[in-house]
Amino acid sequence: MEISLAELVEIIGGDIAGDAHKVISGVAPFDAAGKTDLTFADSAKTLKQIEGSNAGAIIVPRSFTPSVSVNLVYSKSPRLTFARALQLFFPKSQPVAGISPKACIGANFESGQNVSIGYSVVIGDNITIGDRVCLHPGVVVGDNVTVGDDTEVYPNVTILDNCRIGCRVIIHSGSVIGSDGYGFVQEGDSHFKIPQVGVVQIDDDVEIGACNTIDRATFGKTWIQKGVKTDNQVHIGHNVTVGENTLIVAQVGIAGSTSIGKNVTLAGQAGISGHIKIGDYATIGPQAGISRSVAEGQVVSGTPEMPHRQWLKVNRIIPRLPEIKKRLDKLESMVKKMSGNGKADNS
Amino acid sequence: MEISLAELVEIIGGDIAGDAHKVISGVAPFDAAGKTDLTFADSAKTLKQIEGSNAGAIIVPRSFTPSVSVNLVYSKSPRLTFARALQLFFPKSQPVAGISPKACIGANFESGQNVSIGYSVVIGDNITIGDRVCLHPGVVVGDNVTVGDDTEVYPNVTILDNCRIGCRVIIHSGSVIGSDGYGFVQEGDSHFKIPQVGVVQIDDDVEIGACNTIDRATFGKTWIQKGVKTDNQVHIGHNVTVGENTLIVAQVGIAGSTSIGKNVTLAGQAGISGHIKIGDYATIGPQAGISRSVAEGQVVSGTPEMPHRQWLKVNRIIPRLPEIKKRLDKLESMVKKMSGNGKADNS
Amino acid sequence: MEISLAELVEIIGGDIAGDAHKVISGVAPFDAAGKTDLTFADSAKTLKQIEGSNAGAIIVPRSFTPSVSVNLVYSKSPRLTFARALQLFFPKSQPVAGISPKACIGANFESGQNVSIGYSVVIGDNITIGDRVCLHPGVVVGDNVTVGDDTEVYPNVTILDNCRIGCRVIIHSGSVIGSDGYGFVQEGDSHFKIPQVGVVQIDDDVEIGACNTIDRATFGKTWIQKGVKTDNQVHIGHNVTVGENTLIVAQVGIAGSTSIGKNVTLAGQAGISGHIKIGDYATIGPQAGISRSVAEGQVVSGTPEMPHRQWLKVNRIIPRLPEIKKRLDKLESMVKKMSGNGKADNS
Repeated sequence: MEISLAELVEIIGGDIAGDAHKVISGVAPFDAAGKTDLTFADSAKTLKQIEGSNAGAIIVPRSFTPSVSVNLVYSKSPRLTFARALQLFFPKSQPVAGISPKACIGANFESGQNVSIGYSVVIGDNITIGDRVCLHPGVVVGDNVTVGDDTEVYPNVTILDNCRIGCRVIIHSGSVIGSDGYGFVQEGDSHFKIPQVGVVQIDDDVEIGACNTIDRATFGKTWIQKGVKTDNQVHIGHNVTVGENTLIVAQVGIAGSTSIGKNVTLAGQAGISGHIKIGDYATIGPQAGISRSVAEGQVVSGTPEMPHRQWLKVNRIIPRLPEIKKRLDKLESMVKKMSGNGKADNS
Repeated sequence: MEISLAELVEIIGGDIAGDAHKVISGVAPFDAAGKTDLTFADSAKTLKQIEGSNAGAIIVPRSFTPSVSVNLVYSKSPRLTFARALQLFFPKSQPVAGISPKACIGANFESGQNVSIGYSVVIGDNITIGDRVCLHPGVVVGDNVTVGDDTEVYPNVTILDNCRIGCRVIIHSGSVIGSDGYGFVQEGDSHFKIPQVGVVQIDDDVEIGACNTIDRATFGKTWIQKGVKTDNQVHIGHNVTVGENTLIVAQVGIAGSTSIGKNVTLAGQAGISGHIKIGDYATIGPQAGISRSVAEGQVVSGTPEMPHRQWLKVNRIIPRLPEIKKRLDKLESMVKKMSGNGKADNS
Repeated sequence: MEISLAELVEIIGGDIAGDAHKVISGVAPFDAAGKTDLTFADSAKTLKQIEGSNAGAIIVPRSFTPSVSVNLVYSKSPRLTFARALQLFFPKSQPVAGISPKACIGANFESGQNVSIGYSVVIGDNITIGDRVCLHPGVVVGDNVTVGDDTEVYPNVTILDNCRIGCRVIIHSGSVIGSDGYGFVQEGDSHFKIPQVGVVQIDDDVEIGACNTIDRATFGKTWIQKGVKTDNQVHIGHNVTVGENTLIVAQVGIAGSTSIGKNVTLAGQAGISGHIKIGDYATIGPQAGISRSVAEGQVVSGTPEMPHRQWLKVNRIIPRLPEIKKRLDKLESMVKKMSGNGKADNS
C-alpha cells in the first residue's frame, strides 16, 4: 500500500507540516521507522530524538516545535492518529465468508449476510447471528444465543445457552461466556447447587481477552456494557454489571453481584468482593483487595483498600517497619529509664 | 408448570401458613416475584418488606412472625428450600441421548445407557463412561479414562490420559484435567523435565468451574474428593489432595503436594504454598498468602497469614502507618530533648 | 521393562555400590519402592530411613555413607538421575503418526516426517511443521505459523496467525498463543483498539503450562526464549521478553513490554508491571507486586517489593502492628505526662 501524506491525513486526521506529496508505504514504531514509514512521537524522550529519525513522517503533538526539517503530522492525540494509521495499513483480515460444511448448525438458525463459520464450529438451536459475524474453528455456541453484526469470536471460545452478544464484539480464544455462577446452599456438610438460570449479556463494542470466564446470572443477567475492554484471564462472577468503557486488566477477579461503574479502570490482579459498588471513573490499583464500595472518581489501592496517595505513603513505610520497631524499642527503654529517674527524683 | 403450594411443599419441604391451594407457576427473586411466583426472604431487610410483596408465596425462617396476611412457607433454611424449588422449575436440560456420528471414539469404548456425546468430541482408547454421561461438543478425552454416571462435561474441556472422574460430576468449559505437574530438576542452567506419571482422580458430586487447571500427580494421584466445588480459574498443582465438600473460590492457586482438609473454604485469589496442610473446616481469607500449615477450624487471613481477628486489627492500622510514623518521630524528638534537658540538669 | 543396575547406570549415570547385576523393573517414590524398584533419597529425612527401605536400589548423594548393606547409586544430583530413570521407564507415549482425515489442513502446508495431527485439528494456510510434531485433537492453528521438530501441542490449544514455535516445545491444553495485546488509545470516553500486528516467538525446549495466555506484540515479537518453563494460568503481555531457562510459576502475570532476564524465577501469583526489567538470575517471591526494575541476582518479595531478607523481617512485624501501636500510645502518654511534669518543674 502506497499513499501520499495528504491522502493519509484525509483518513486518519491531523495537519501536515512538510511535504504533503510524500509517499508513505508503512507504519512503524519510532525506533524502527524507515524512509517511507509513518511513525509518532509523543513523549519528551522521542520528541528529542526526532532530529535523528529517518521516518517518512512523524505524528507529533500540536505543541511541538521542530528544530529540523522533517515531515510532521500535528495531532491532538498522536497515539490515536497513529492507531488509525495502523488500522489502515493492517486491516483486520476478513475471513472467507461461508459456512464450513464441517460446522454443525442446529435448528432454527437465522444467519446474517457474509458470515464466516469455521471448521468444527458447533452451534445449538435457535441461534441468530448478524452480518459478517465470524466464528473461528473450535467455537461452541449453545442454544438460544444471539450474536450481533461484525462480531468476531476467536478459536476455542465457548458461548453457552441463552447468552446475548452485541455488535462489533471481539472475544479472544479460550474464553467462556455463560458458565454457571458459583452458587450453593449449605445442606449439612455438603453443598446444594443453586440452579443458575440467568444469562450473560455483552453489549456492542466490547472486547473480551483470552481465557476470560464470565458467569451467567443466578436470575437476570451478568451484564458487560458497551465499550468494555477486558484483558486476559479475567473472572467476572454471576450478576455482575460492568459499566460502559470500563477497562479490566489481566487476572482481575470480580465476585458475584458487584456493580462496576462506567469508565472505571481495574488494574492487574485486583480482586473485587461481591455485593459492592465501584463508582464511575474510579481507578483500582494492581493487586488491590477491594472489600468495600468505592465512590465515583476515587483512586484506590492496596489491601486493605485506601486512597492511592495514602497507599503510596504507606508503601514507603512498610519496608521500614523493622527500623521503626527498633526506634520504638529504644525510645521505650529511654523513657522507662527517664521515668525511673523521675520516680527517683520524686522519692 | 403449575403446581399448588401444597404439592410444591411435598417436594421441596417446609410448612405452609396460608392458602395451601394457591397455584404457583414460577420462582423469582424477592424484588421480582409476581402473583403466582414463589420467592424467599431470609434477611432482616427482605423480611421487613414482606408487607409490600406481591409474591404468591414466600419461604421464610421458622422464627418469622408475619404482620400481614400472606402465603408463607416456613423452613429451617429458606435459601435451601428455594434452591430446591429452582431445581424443580428449571430442571437441568437433558441433552438428546446419542453419540454424534461426528464424534471420534477410540478402541475398547464401554458406554453406559443414554449417554450424550456431542459433535467433534474426541475420546481415546479404553474409555469407560457411565449412564447418562454427557460430553458436550469440543470435549477431548485421552486414553484409559473412566467417567461415572450422570456426569456432565461442558464444551471445550480436556481430560487427559488415565484420569478418573466420578458420578454426578460437573466440569465447566475450558477446564483442563490432568495436565502435567510442574516438575523439573535443575541441570546446570537448564531444567530437566520430571515425567509426571500419576493421575487426577475426581470423586462423586464434585463441580469444577470454568478454566480450572488440575495437574496430574508426579506419582500417585491428585485427588479431589467427594462434594468439592471449585469456582472459575482455580489452579491445583500435582499431588494435591482436596478433602470432601471443600469450597475453592475463583483464581485460587494451590501449589504441589499440599493437603487441603474437608469442608475448608479458600476465598478468592488466595495462594497456598506447596507441601503444607490446611486442616478440616479451616477458612482462608481472600488474597491470603498461606506459607505454613493451618490447624483444623482456624480462620486465617493476610500475607503473612495470621488469625483473621488479628488481621482485622492489623488492617485498621496499616492505613494509619504514616500517622504512626509521625507520632514516633515527634515522640523521639521530645524524648531526646527531655533527655538532653535531663543531662543539662545533671551538669 | 527389566534392566540390570549396571545397564541402567550406563543410561542414567551414577556409580554403583552394591550388586551391579541386580534387576530393576520399575521406579517409585521412596516410600513406595519395592524389591525391584529404583528410588532416590536426597533429604536428611529419607537418608535416615534407608535402613528400612525395601527398594531394589537407591540413588543417593556422593556424600552419603550407608550403615547397612543396600544397593546404592551415587550421583551428584540424585533427583536428576532419578528423573532420567523416570523418562526411561515412562517414555513419552508416541502418538500414532499420521494426519487424521478429519483434520482440516489449509493451503501450502509443509509437513515434516512422522507428524501426528489429530481429529478435528484445524490448520490455516502457509503452515510449516517439523518432524514428529504432534498436534492433539482440538488444536487450532492460524495462518503462517511454523512449528519445529518434536514439538507437542496438547488438546484445545490455540496458536494464532504468524506465531513461531521452536523445536521440542510442549504446550499444554487450553493455552492461547498469539491473542491480541491489550492496547487501546482513549478517544473521549471510549477506547480505540491499537491493531496488534506483531507475533509470538517461542524458542526451543520451552514448556508452556495449561491455560496460559501469551499475547502477540503490538509490533515485533513477544519472545519466550530457549528453555523457559511456565506453570498453569500464566499471563504474558504483549512485547514481553522472557530470557532463557526462566521459571514462571502458576498464575503469574507479566504486563506489556517488560523484559525478564534468563534463569529468573517468578513465584506463584506474582505480578510484574509493564515496561520494567528483571535482571538475570533474579528471584521474585510469591504474590509479590513488582513495580520497579530488579537488578541481576536479586531476591525480591512483597508489595511493595523489597529485598527478601528485609521482607522476612517486615513479615514478622506486620502481625504485631496492633501491639506496636499500643506501645506507642502508652509511650506517648507517659512522655506527655513527663513533659508536663518537666514544664511544671520549670515553672
